[in-house]
Amino acid sequence: MTTRMAAEIAEQPEAVRRTVEALWPLRPALAELGDGARHVLFLARGSSDNAATYGRYLCEIHAGRAASLGAPSLATHYRAGTELGGVLAVGLSQSGETEEIVAALRWAAGRGARTVAVTNAAGSALADAADLALVTAAGRERAVPATKTYTTQLVALAVLASALGPDDRSFDAAMARVPEAIAAMLDTAPDAERLAARLAAPGRKDAPMIVSGRGLAYSTALELALKLEETCYLPAIGLSHADLVHGPIAMLGPGTPALLVAAGDGPVLSGMTALARSVAERGGRAYGIGGDGAFRAACEAALPGPDLPEALAPMALVVPCQLLVEALARRLGLDPDQPRGLTKVTQTGTP
Amino acid sequence: MTTRMAAEIAEQPEAVRRTVEALWPLRPALAELGDGARHVLFLARGSSDNAATYGRYLCEIHAGRAASLGAPSLATHYRAGTELGGVLAVGLSQSGETEEIVAALRWAAGRGARTVAVTNAAGSALADAADLALVTAAGRERAVPATKTYTTQLVALAVLASALGPDDRSFDAAMARVPEAIAAMLDTAPDAERLAARLAAPGRKDAPMIVSGRGLAYSTALELALKLEETCYLPAIGLSHADLVHGPIAMLGPGTPALLVAAGDGPVLSGMTALARSVAERGGRAYGIGGDGAFRAACEAALPGPDLPEALAPMALVVPCQLLVEALARRLGLDPDQPRGLTKVTQTGTP
Repeated sequence: MTTRMAAEIAEQPEAVRRTVEALWPLRPALAELGDGARHVLFLARGSSDNAATYGRYLCEIHAGRAASLGAPSLATHYRAGTELGGVLAVGLSQSGETEEIVAALRWAAGRGARTVAVTNAAGSALADAADLALVTAAGRERAVPATKTYTTQLVALAVLASALGPDDRSFDAAMARVPEAIAAMLDTAPDAERLAARLAAPGRKDAPMIVSGRGLAYSTALELALKLEETCYLPAIGLSHADLVHGPIAMLGPGTPALLVAAGDGPVLSGMTALARSVAERGGRAYGIGGDGAFRAACEAALPGPDLPEALAPMALVVPCQLLVEALARRLGLDPDQPRGLTKVTQTGTP
Repeated sequence: MTTRMAAEIAEQPEAVRRTVEALWPLRPALAELGDGARHVLFLARGSSDNAATYGRYLCEIHAGRAASLGAPSLATHYRAGTELGGVLAVGLSQSGETEEIVAALRWAAGRGARTVAVTNAAGSALADAADLALVTAAGRERAVPATKTYTTQLVALAVLASALGPDDRSFDAAMARVPEAIAAMLDTAPDAERLAARLAAPGRKDAPMIVSGRGLAYSTALELALKLEETCYLPAIGLSHADLVHGPIAMLGPGTPALLVAAGDGPVLSGMTALARSVAERGGRAYGIGGDGAFRAACEAALPGPDLPEALAPMALVVPCQLLVEALARRLGLDPDQPRGLTKVTQTGTP
C-alpha cells in the first residue's frame, strides 16, 4: 500500500510547476517591496526553518543581500527592541497558522521591517499579516512530514532571490527545468529502498547517524536530519561540513553511518568528497546523496542527485532524501504519515 | 589524578576576573566603533560559534541591535558580494589562527563592515585583521576541549553588548559578581559526578541524548551538546526548545535522556519547566541544569545553576555542564584532555 507521504512526494513535479507559475509574476512587486532593503530576516521553525536556510544562502550568493535566520523567541518572549528599519522580514509557515511565526512577523513589522509571508494557505493569519504573501500551490498535504509544502517553499524563496538579485537568464532558464528534474528524482525510489535496507540492518539502527552538507545544500542536510528524527525517530545529527570537522567528527567510530548531501557542482563539492574519504578512513560508512561521480565513488553507496546548477539543486536534491526517509520508516515498522506526538500545525507556545 | 580539563575548569573564576578587568575599559572604543552600526554579524565555528549564539541574543535583547551568525563559507567558498556597509562584524577564534574565520573577517571588512576580533591570542592573525581586538585573558589552555577560553569569550561578548547598549547599572553590578558565581558553581562537582554515573549506566550510553535550552541559555545547551559529542563521543542532539517541540520530540521514547539547561529567571523559564514535565510524560528522563526550584522539581535529577540574572547567567551556567562532561568522559574510559582526531587549532579548509 502506498503511504500518503509517498503519494505526496510523487505530486511534487506538478506542485512545483503550479507554484512557479503562480509566483513568478510577483517578482516586480517583490523587487519593489525589497528595494533598498539592506537585510533579509527569515522567521520560521522546523522544516520551514530548513527552507529558510536555503533562502538565506541564496539571497547572499545570488542577490548580494545580507540575510539571516531570526530567533522567534526574541519577539515572542523577550519582546526585543531591535531596530529593523530597512529590513525585509520573511515569515514562513506551511499552514500559515503557527502563532509564534505570525507573532514574530507582526513584531518585525512593528520594529520597522517590510514583510513577506511564504505559506501554503491563502487567507491564513500569516498571509494576512504580511505586506505581500507568496502563497505556494502545493495543494492539501495530509501526511504529517512536510514534503510538497517544503519544495514549494524553496520555489518561493528562489523567486524572492531572483526578484532581489540581478537579471540572470541562466537562473531563469534553470528554474524552468526544476519540475522535470524533480520528476527524474522520483526514479531513484528503488535505490532509496536499498539504502534504507542497509540503514535498517540489525544492530545499526540505534547508532547515531551523522548528516552533513555545506553551502546551499546544507539546508537539504538539515531537512534530511529533521525528517529522520521526526519520522524515523533516529538520532540524526545534522551539521554543516565545517562544524562537523570542527569537533563532533570525534564521534565517528567504526560503522557510524554518515549521510552526505551535495549538489552536482559548485565550490563546496570537492570538500564534501574529501569528507566522504575522511569518514571512510575513520572506519565510518559514508552514504552519498547527489554530488558528482568523484563524490559518489568516495562513498560506500550513493543515490544520484539532480541535473541542476547548485543554486537550484536543493529543490530536487531533497527528493531522494524524502524517498529514503519514507522507505526507512516503513522498514522500521513505523507509519510515516503519522509520527508519534506530532500534529500538522505546530504551536511551540507563547507565554 | 586531576585532568587538565578539570584544572582549567577550576581556573575560570580567575580567568574571568582578569578578562573583565582587561576588557571593561575598552567599552568607549567599542561604542565608537559600533556607533550607527545597524547589524552585528558574528563569524565563528565550534565552541566559538556557541559563544556567538550568546552574543547574538544579548546584542538584540540588551542592546537593541539586530544580530546574526554568519556562514563563513559565504566568504571563503562563495565569495558572496554581500553589501555590509553599516555592519559590525565580530570574528571569534580562541587561537586567533582559524584560517576560515580570519578570511571571513577580512572578507567582511572588504565588503564594508567594521571589525572586532575576540581571541585569546594577542598578535594572532585574527587580532591583526580587526579594527579592534578584544583579547581574553584565559591564559594558555592545554586540554583540547575549550573551557576557560569559552567563558572568557562570553565575557568579551557581554562587554560588547554593554558598550553597544544603554547605560545599565544593574547589568554592570551583575557583571562584577560573575567570577564569584563561577566559583560557586565549582562546588557542584560531586553532583555532576553523580549525574555522570547515571548517564554512563550500562545500556544507556548508546541511546541518543537530547540537549535543549531556550533564549539566552540556548547557547549553553549547544555548548553542552558539542562537548558531549567531541569529548564523550555521545550522540547529543542540541536543539532549541521550540525546534525540539516542532518535530524531533517524536524521537523521545522510554528512557531517552534529555538534558535541559535554563537560567534561574527570565521569560523562557516556565516553558523549560513545562518541557521537563513533557519529557517525563513521554517516558523520557529529564535531567536539569540550572533553573529555579519548580524547574528542578520537574526533573528526575538536577544540578543547581548560578545566582545571576538571565542575561549573564550563561557565563556560570556552563560550568556544571563542563564538570558533567569531564566526569562522564572519565567514566566512559576516555581521556577528556585529548579527544580522538581533534587538535587545538581547527582548520576546516579553504578551497
